[in-house]
This record gives sequence, structure tokens and C-alpha cells, in this order.
Amino acid sequence: MIVDIPKNSDFSIHNIPFGIFSTADRSPRAGVAIGDHILDLAAVAQLDVFDFNTAVFEKQTLNDFIDLGKNITNKVRKDIQKWLQDDVSVLANKPQLFVRQSEAQMHMPVFINDYTDFYSSMEHATNVGKMFRDPENALLPNWRHIPVGYHGRASSIVVSGQAIHRPKGQTIPNDSKQPIFGASQGLDFELEMGFITGKSTTLGASISTQQADDYIFGMVLLNDWSARDIQKWEYVPLGPFLAKNFASHISPWIVTLEALEPFKVAGPKQEPEVLPYLQYEGYKNYDINLEVGIVPEGSSEQTVCHSNFKFMYWNMAQQLAHHTVNGCNVNIGDLYGSGTISGKDENSYGSMLELAWMGTKPLKMKDGTERKFIHDGDTVIMRGHSQKEGKRVGFGEVKAKILPAT
Amino acid sequence: MIVDIPKNSDFSIHNIPFGIFSTADRSPRAGVAIGDHILDLAAVAQLDVFDFNTAVFEKQTLNDFIDLGKNITNKVRKDIQKWLQDDVSVLANKPQLFVRQSEAQMHMPVFINDYTDFYSSMEHATNVGKMFRDPENALLPNWRHIPVGYHGRASSIVVSGQAIHRPKGQTIPNDSKQPIFGASQGLDFELEMGFITGKSTTLGASISTQQADDYIFGMVLLNDWSARDIQKWEYVPLGPFLAKNFASHISPWIVTLEALEPFKVAGPKQEPEVLPYLQYEGYKNYDINLEVGIVPEGSSEQTVCHSNFKFMYWNMAQQLAHHTVNGCNVNIGDLYGSGTISGKDENSYGSMLELAWMGTKPLKMKDGTERKFIHDGDTVIMRGHSQKEGKRVGFGEVKAKILPAT
Repeated sequence: MIVDIPKNSDFSIHNIPFGIFSTADRSPRAGVAIGDHILDLAAVAQLDVFDFNTAVFEKQTLNDFIDLGKNITNKVRKDIQKWLQDDVSVLANKPQLFVRQSEAQMHMPVFINDYTDFYSSMEHATNVGKMFRDPENALLPNWRHIPVGYHGRASSIVVSGQAIHRPKGQTIPNDSKQPIFGASQGLDFELEMGFITGKSTTLGASISTQQADDYIFGMVLLNDWSARDIQKWEYVPLGPFLAKNFASHISPWIVTLEALEPFKVAGPKQEPEVLPYLQYEGYKNYDINLEVGIVPEGSSEQTVCHSNFKFMYWNMAQQLAHHTVNGCNVNIGDLYGSGTISGKDENSYGSMLELAWMGTKPLKMKDGTERKFIHDGDTVIMRGHSQKEGKRVGFGEVKAKILPAT
Repeated sequence: MIVDIPKNSDFSIHNIPFGIFSTADRSPRAGVAIGDHILDLAAVAQLDVFDFNTAVFEKQTLNDFIDLGKNITNKVRKDIQKWLQDDVSVLANKPQLFVRQSEAQMHMPVFINDYTDFYSSMEHATNVGKMFRDPENALLPNWRHIPVGYHGRASSIVVSGQAIHRPKGQTIPNDSKQPIFGASQGLDFELEMGFITGKSTTLGASISTQQADDYIFGMVLLNDWSARDIQKWEYVPLGPFLAKNFASHISPWIVTLEALEPFKVAGPKQEPEVLPYLQYEGYKNYDINLEVGIVPEGSSEQTVCHSNFKFMYWNMAQQLAHHTVNGCNVNIGDLYGSGTISGKDENSYGSMLELAWMGTKPLKMKDGTERKFIHDGDTVIMRGHSQKEGKRVGFGEVKAKILPAT
């Protein structure tokens, strides 16, 4: 191996995820993560080893690289895998091609024109339904027929590491008819994964479940921050708005769908049978272990959730087929959130709302404090990885600290 | 006057709206509408009359021009007004600077990163509440406190003239629990206006109602197409999704806020009093006459709605203040829809849903047919203009034909 890869690294030779990084001496450019390093693709391009216009590696986002198509992007990934494992390859004895991740700054990997958030975990939808609506009929009638989704805000999606301020907004005190204004008292994370489209369509065109994999470039971790008190007051009838659009964080490395291929598993049985345009063949779920940790200011990390992406009722192929069945067009770089990924166990719930069950079961922290929701100074960290037969493919982390409201 | 301006033209000397056009011999570029002509700004720039980098007029969108700031964009508008009225100005005897609108193709005036749709007409919200929810409590408790809004799809916003196909999707037949898939039977227009931000903010920053005018570059007409049968089945609990994102049309000319200044009027009294961050001073509503016509295939246009933008309960300054009060960042070119603009009179309702009252009062057309919703082959045209003391400032039209589902 050309570069040392720590055992259990998310960024093994089987992964080769793409991202945008900068260093003290040089502006943002494309790279791939390998072990604790980044292979600088703009620098590799100088070796004249690629047969396409490598100006795409000098861009501030990966959109133009992705636009080259999977024939090329998959070949780049395969070539790098081959070169890294060959001690006499073009990458040999060229330490200048590698940057320590600890010495790099990560940036948004893609420009996102449109962001859609789904609601595809049955456990999450059921939990929320129990708390906010009718415990006896927690799951709404449309939920098993439609991969329910809504449009989110693209502008406020930021990369892991950027601290954000607690949002302010309107909320309604219990038993009051007069709303008040102030800092949210119900700041929450949502453990999600997001996929990024790698191919555009024109208005009027649809993507079938069979075609979907070809349109999905890769995946990231997504923390879809939510302000539950703002959400509760504003969301009827048109859905969440200010409760969500103050920020969402994504992990910086896009793990390709091809790297995740070995971790495909069967999804939950869908009953009643879905309409033909939502039916699919083969395995479309992915076994990706997920966890969430909270680091209170001045304390150490405490894991509060273990979940798995394989729990999702609706898969990405169904989400994309549904999204486009009416002719809605998609662009390269668009982001699609899974919705909060909750499992059946209480420790697998993907939000504080569910973990502390609307504040009725506060989480005890190691420093003696309790958490119903997220406190100022808390850092929330999400991690995800797949592992099978000695192969590990991971996402690293998406991490952000909450600063007090301005 | 350098160019002939027909009496009652929307594009009078008082207007000077900006847009992007192309001609058979030349690619898209910036222009202003004047009478039946377009003044080619890229060509005017060749006269060396502007003291900024005029490459902005050669771009495919106005975003970079708008980014110059209102000091410059307003001066361009004022200079053009002055030059057009001066028979010996730099524009005199240069017919090559003018293109007939009938010989130009209009394009999207801006690149839209994010699209937000509000719901700010009390009459519309009340009508929808009566039909879809509880006639006795049609207006939801939050409506008088919050300029309710939600995120829409940016990718499918297209410019006037582009025909679109009727969307397909899931709907639920009355008294059934099993949804069906097919072409929407409830295709509807929504008469809206949209404003476009002319200044960006960073994540965490807010825009006050006092600052809002400075952040609004101008306005367009907006037809926010809706599929009512799809909407009814999908929209609980996260809001409209496929019922809206198959297409929205905007008019091609952005009328600046400065051109609309003479038409400011007082808005409706807001009771109960709104929270301090939503309070405002001065006039923030605009007296803009609106109308909607339907042209059945092979027949002539029939006006089905007369409304006015001044009816809006929530104004644009309040919408923008609300949108950013949680720190959500905005970008130049972002579009904000008003929501359907309905008045009190039955002929002022801004959608077929309301005009034909959920199909119970079909509209009789001149060709003998009836309309509950929009038919294949129908062309829907919206127009808007302000008029006062002999000054007319208008938007032209937003127009689109509905093709059968694919």
C-alpha cells in the first residue's frame, strides 16, 4: 500500500470517497480520503494519468466531476484503488500527493440547487405521530403508499465542523393562544443519511426504480437540525419551515453507491403492496451502522443513539422514482435526506424528541446534567460505517457545535 | 422619446424592467422592456456609457448584474429613462440597440437557488380551510401570527411560454383506502406574485422589516401550478410536494421595487397585533391589478379572475423578516411566492379550486364547455399592472399551455 491505512479506518481501500478540501497554502480542490490522508486529485492530475479534462478537480465543488458520468468517475475510483495498492504505481514515492486530513479544511463537496427531505422510517413517523397527533392512529393513511417528502432549504446546508447558533422563532406556550418570540427551547438533531444525484433530468422526465442507481452518485451523513417548539406551532398545514431551514450539516466525504454495493440488504416487507411505479427488484437497502454522540461543553462524548440505515421502510430508488413520477426535474448535486433513521429499540431513535420522548424521559449525561433537547455548547457528532467480511466502508463524521442564540 | 411606446403599454417609461432575451442571431443577454421593444443592454454597453464591468450584461442570468447593488442597478434604470426621453442622447439614431419583443425569445431572468412559497392571502387560506378542513374554523390558529410559508422546488421554475405536461401521480378516490396512479384530474393554476432577493445574507443573519426593501430587487408574476387531487392525498403532515413541484411559471421581466414605489398602499389591519419582529412602518402593500384568462384549445381567451396584490394580509417585508428571523440565509435570485392572491369577491379568487368551489360551481366557457379545473390544451394567462395618475407600470404576462400527460 502506498499510504498507511489504520485498521478500522472508515476510509479503507474499499471506500475511496470524494470531497473538496483546502490547505493553508492552497485553495479548495478535489480529493479522495484514504486512511488518515487525502489524496490530492488536482495534484494527481498533473501526472497526466487521466484521459479527461482534469480542470474538474480544480473546481470548488464536485459537480463538474460528477457530470463526467459514472463511466469516468467509477474508473477514477478503480484506478486509485489499483494505484494505491501497487508499490510501483504512478503514486509511488510522491508524498506531495498526500495531505494529512488533520491539516486540511473540508468544504461543501457539491453545490446543492435543491434539497428534499423524506420521512421514510416507519418507526420515526410512528413515534412522531404518537407524540404530536393520535397515539391510536400514529401512522397517517398515506404513509404506507407514498414515500412522504417535502422540500427543504438548500442555502443553509453546511459542511461538518461549522458551528451554528441556536435559532430564534415563534412558539406557543402550552395553554396559551398568544405566541411568544425567543430562542428555541427544543433544539434537536435528526440522524439522517442523504444521497446526491449524479445525473440531471429535464422537466417532464421520470426516473424508474430500475434506473435510480444510475442517477445516484453517492451518500453522506446528514444532521437535519430541527427546532421542535417552532415546528409544532408553524407546521400545519404546509409543513416545517423555520423549524428546519436555519441549518443542516452534511459529512464532507461522498461515499459512492459503488463503494456501498457489498452492503446491500433486503428492506422491510411493504404491506399493502405499493403501486407499480414504486415496485423494485433486488436489494435496495444498505446495512450502514449509525451512531450519535453528544459532547457537552467541557465534558466527554456520550453515545446516545445506535441505529442503522437498513431500517428504512422506503429506499432511495423508491424515493427518486416517486420524486420524479410527476416530471419534476433533478440536477447533479441535489440532496435527498432519508428522514430521521429510527429503529425499533428505544436507544435506536434518531432524535432527542424520541430518545427523551418529548422531554418525559430526559437522558442522563456523564457530567451529571440531563438532556431533553440540545443545550448551548453541546457538540453533536454522527458517524456511519458498513462492515462485512473484513471490509469497512465509512462516512467519517458530521459534527457541529451549538452556539447560543445571537 | 427615442422609441415609440404604445399607449397603455405595461412597459412605459416609468417601468424599465430587466430580463434576459435572445434573438435568432445572438445568444441570451440582458435587456430592458420598453413599449413593444427590448433595449439590448449588452449592445448599449458597447457605447461605453456605464462605469462598471458590463460583462454582467452578457451573462445568461441577471444575478451578477443584481449583485452590483441597488446604487448601480437603480442608476442604470434612471439613466435609461433619461436617455430614452432625450432625442439627442447616446441612444439616438441607433435602431440596432432595439429588438422587437415579437422577434425575441425570453429566458429565465435569474438563476434561482431557493424558492419559498408563502400563503399570505387571508381569503385564499380561508377558502381552502373551508373546503379541505373545518368550515367553522377555516383559518388555522397560527395564521394571523405567522406569514405561513414552505419551501418549493427551484429546478422546475420555468419562464412564461414553455408548455408543460399534465402531471401524473397518486390520488385517492373518494371512499377508497387504495390510492390509484394516473394523470391528475385536478390541475389548477395559482395566481401569485413573486419577489426576488437582490442581496445575500450569511447564515445566522436576519433581515428586519425596515431593511427588507433594500433586499428586494423586484417582482414577477407567478403561476404556481397545483394538482389538487395529488395535494389532497399527500400533504399531511409535511405539506405539498409532488402536487406543486412539477412546474411553476414566472413572467420574464423583473419589475423593480423602485418602479412600483408610486403604487404603495396601506395593507389590511392585522389583528391581533403581530409580534415585534413582524411590525413595520409605512406602506408595504402594492396596488397591482391582476387577472387570469383561460384560452381553451381553438377558442378565444376568457377572463376568469380579477384580483389585486393589495389584498395580501402579510406583506413582503414581513415575509422576508419572518423567513430570516431564525438565521436562514438568502441568496441573490431567490424567489418568494406570495401565495394565491384571492380577494373577497367570488370573481377575485386566484385558483380554479376556489372559482369553481371544488368543482361544485363549474365555470361556463364561451365555447360551451365547462371548467372545474384546467383541461389539456388550455392556455392559462396571467397579467398584472399598476396604474395611477396616468402612469402605468406592468408585468406583461405569464402564459403557459397544458399538454396531455406523457
